Order: sequence, then C-alpha cells, then structure tokens
Amino acid sequence: MAPWAERLAGVRGVLLDISGVLYDSGAGGGTAIAGSVEAVARLKGSRLKVRFCTNESQKSRAELVGQLRRLGFDISEREVTAPAPAACQILKERGLRPYLLIHDGVRSEFDQIDTSNPNCVVIADAGESFSYQNMNNAFQVLMELENPVLISLGKGRYYKETSGLMLDVGPYMKALEYACGIKAEVVGKPSPEFFKSALQAIGVEAHQAVMIGDDIVGDVGGAQRCGMRALQVRTGKFRPSDEHHPEVKADGYVDNLAEAVDLLLQHTDK
Amino acid sequence: MAPWAERLAGVRGVLLDISGVLYDSGAGGGTAIAGSVEAVARLKGSRLKVRFCTNESQKSRAELVGQLRRLGFDISEREVTAPAPAACQILKERGLRPYLLIHDGVRSEFDQIDTSNPNCVVIADAGESFSYQNMNNAFQVLMELENPVLISLGKGRYYKETSGLMLDVGPYMKALEYACGIKAEVVGKPSPEFFKSALQAIGVEAHQAVMIGDDIVGDVGGAQRCGMRALQVRTGKFRPSDEHHPEVKADGYVDNLAEAVDLLLQHTDK
Repeated sequence: MAPWAERLAGVRGVLLDISGVLYDSGAGGGTAIAGSVEAVARLKGSRLKVRFCTNESQKSRAELVGQLRRLGFDISEREVTAPAPAACQILKERGLRPYLLIHDGVRSEFDQIDTSNPNCVVIADAGESFSYQNMNNAFQVLMELENPVLISLGKGRYYKETSGLMLDVGPYMKALEYACGIKAEVVGKPSPEFFKSALQAIGVEAHQAVMIGDDIVGDVGGAQRCGMRALQVRTGKFRPSDEHHPEVKADGYVDNLAEAVDLLLQHTDK
Repeated sequence: MAPWAERLAGVRGVLLDISGVLYDSGAGGGTAIAGSVEAVARLKGSRLKVRFCTNESQKSRAELVGQLRRLGFDISEREVTAPAPAACQILKERGLRPYLLIHDGVRSEFDQIDTSNPNCVVIADAGESFSYQNMNNAFQVLMELENPVLISLGKGRYYKETSGLMLDVGPYMKALEYACGIKAEVVGKPSPEFFKSALQAIGVEAHQAVMIGDDIVGDVGGAQRCGMRALQVRTGKFRPSDEHHPEVKADGYVDNLAEAVDLLLQHTDK
C-alpha cells in the first residue's frame, strides 16, 4: 500500500460511523470504545470538518446523542446524519403513509407522519419488535398494494452489542423482499444520496473526505462508491476476514478510531 | 393449449400438495376446500397411484394426518412425503446436531436427533416462534461455525390461512442467508430429491406423473424441472397473476382439486 501521507492527501472532512467506532451499544447505554472519546475531541479541535453518519435506527437522534454525551462524547444532534429524518422527508415528498416496522425508541422521529391507511412499509432495526406478528402485518400491507413500496433504514447484516452479534435490519428487509417479490428502497448507508447529504452538511466534496467505519460493505464500500476514501477500524463488528473481502478493499485498516485520528492529524494538511 | 387428453396422456401417478389444495389451514384445524374430500376419495378409488407431497413443517405428519382425517379426508401417515423426516435422515447421515428454529408442533419428528452443542441450523415454518430472539440464536450459532450449514424445510414465500396470507419459512431462510453470507440447503419442494422420493414411494416415473399444487413456483415449477407435468389449482395461495408468471407455465390451470380429478379420471387410461 502507498504511504499514509499519500493515501490521506487532500482530506478536508471526516465522516464518522457511530456504533462500533465510537461505542458498542448494549445494556445500560453501551460502552465507549477505548480512546474514542479523546479521538473525537482531537478531531473536532483540528481543522478537519467532522460529521457523524450513522445507520442507527433503533433510537431517535436525541436519545442517541444523549447516550453518547453521557459516555463523554462531544456531539450534538445537529452534527448527526441519520436515516429516520431522511426517510420522513421522502414520505412527505411522495405522500406516503407508512406502516412502521420500527423500534419504539425511534418512533418519535415519525411524530409528524400520517400512518393511517398505510400505502407503504418503513422497516428499521426493530430488534425485539421483529415479531412474527409484526413482520406478517408488514407483509400483508405490502401484498394489498398494487405498487408495493418498502423503505428500509439501512440494510446492515448485523452489528455488535456488548452481549454479542445482533441481527440488523438487512436480513428482515431481505425477508420482505423475497416474500413479496419486490426490491426495497434503502435510506441510509450505503445509499449514495445519504453519504452526499452528510458531505453537504459540512461543505466537503467526496474526493476531499474520508469515511471511518466498522462495516466493510456499508461504510467502506458505500463511501468508496461515492468517490470518498474509507478506513475500516478493527472494532465493533470488524472481523479479520474483512481485510480479505472479495469485493471491497479499504484505503486503510486501523486498530481503532484513535489510530485513525493519529494518522489523519499527522498526515493531512495543517 | 393442447387438448386435455393430450396433456394428460400416459399419467399413472398423482402427487397432491396438501395446504391450499386439500384444505386451508387456520384456527380450529382449518377448513376443507369445497369438493376436495370427495376428489381425494375418487382419485384413490381409481387406478392412478396417489402420494401426498407437502412442505408442511409446522406439524408432525401424525398431527397433520389427524387434522385431515377429522375434516373427512382418506389419508394415512405412510402416504405422506414431508420435509422433517427427510431432514432427519440427512442430519443422521452427516452427523449434524441442529439448532432447531421450528414450530413446537413438529418437534416430535426430531425426537431421535442430538441437538447438543449445535453444528448446524434447521429452519422450518416456525410461525410465532420466529421471534427476534430465536432468529438471533440461530444467527449466532451459524456465525460461530467455520462452515455454517443451514437446512431449510422448504422455501415457500407465504401460504394462506383462513385468516389471510401468512409468511412461510422462505423469507426467514433468506434473512439468515443474507445475515451470514451463506446459501441454505432446501429439503422439501422444489428440491428434485424430494419430488423423486415421493415418486419412488409409489413406483412411478417422473414422465408418468402429475403434480397438483397451489404454488406456481414450488409445486408447478419444481415438478416440471423434475420432468413431471403440473397443474395449478385456483385455491389456496393462488393469485390471478400466477397464470402470467414470467418463468413458470403450468400444464393446466383448474379451479380446484375437484376439477383436476374430473379431468384426470376422464382423460387418463382407464
């Protein structure tokens, strides 16, 4: 691989994944990943622009930011790009009334949305709410529609909680796709529109930005397809086989966010 | 289309799907489809060989046959080809110890199977047992294995209960395939081995047999790929769009099993 200085040349902005990079979610609010609190502070104290870009769809941004602040992170709601608000905008623009197959923790993001007489389904990381009954309700709504619309907040396969690997929204999205013979519209990483809206928020072009995430496909592959560079951290859901992924090669692999920030501060323009 | 006499020439044996052809399952044991009790009786009174070929995986064969007999059907356990017993044979042959993601109703079929320290997952139509917790357990078992083995009893998208369309095992199989990046082994229709074992049980060659089912892909397409002919009934999960399916064309569409049997008795050799 080329030297870091070359790989990071011209970087002006950084997109940070949250779960698996800043912290591992779990009981009692989860735990910060060692060194990440300081790394975020150092990054925000530098000349680099920073935006948090998450597929978190179990919690509202308010709840997520509250949890992270309690863990010591310097973060505010207006710095976070998350899929639920993006989905709400799409629903309003297209006059869609969703059946919400979502976690109760994120329901407040949809407060302004009409959910009567549903003409689409929104699926998110619903966790325990992925009961057979709820999945079947969503399925029946879709099968009644002439042009079924399924909007999925991300399509991650799984994530890591402190207690172990947990199924994410992606597998359940695939289940409904197969059941109904349809294709979901994904809002969130790795959708290009989603990365672009995060970049717009900090006024940085894709070729000047680097994504830091623990998901080789959703974070790294998705960002690279948008023209960004991307680093994978060896925390969160990272697995050693990711470094030999058949399709995606990160611009660099680092042990954790702290190492990524060391390299960025050392090798990007002061 | 060619005349029925031509389409049915040389038929000596009939494979009958059960759910959606004989009866619609549901609360209180379900309801017989009009004319089906008599149709089965007439078929079994003819010179045609008959075998029941089902992907039912919520109930043991004993329970299924008991329910059907209470609805008036002339059927016994030894006339039924079902996926759970076929899966047990595979598990024994390959020394596999499954985590069972199945309905309690079919658990007795696995009484002789060692389920300690699982080295594979068997997934069936688990209904309400498709909780997030159980799906996550199966996922975690698979992710711990070097060579994950997922055996699925059928891969149907949905079926019809008296209360409406219900998600079948297929969507959940797809969910685990996607989560783990693997491909399931399907036991049951449309697996060729499964159809062949049903034909062997009645000593009939594929080209002499006709499958009657309500599933255009699993029943009709699967049987045709084995060299059988296949009729689709307009009962159970049948939907009008099935008659214009982009990939599968049945050898005939009939209103129900009674019409299929009328045609078979009229047009096959006496």
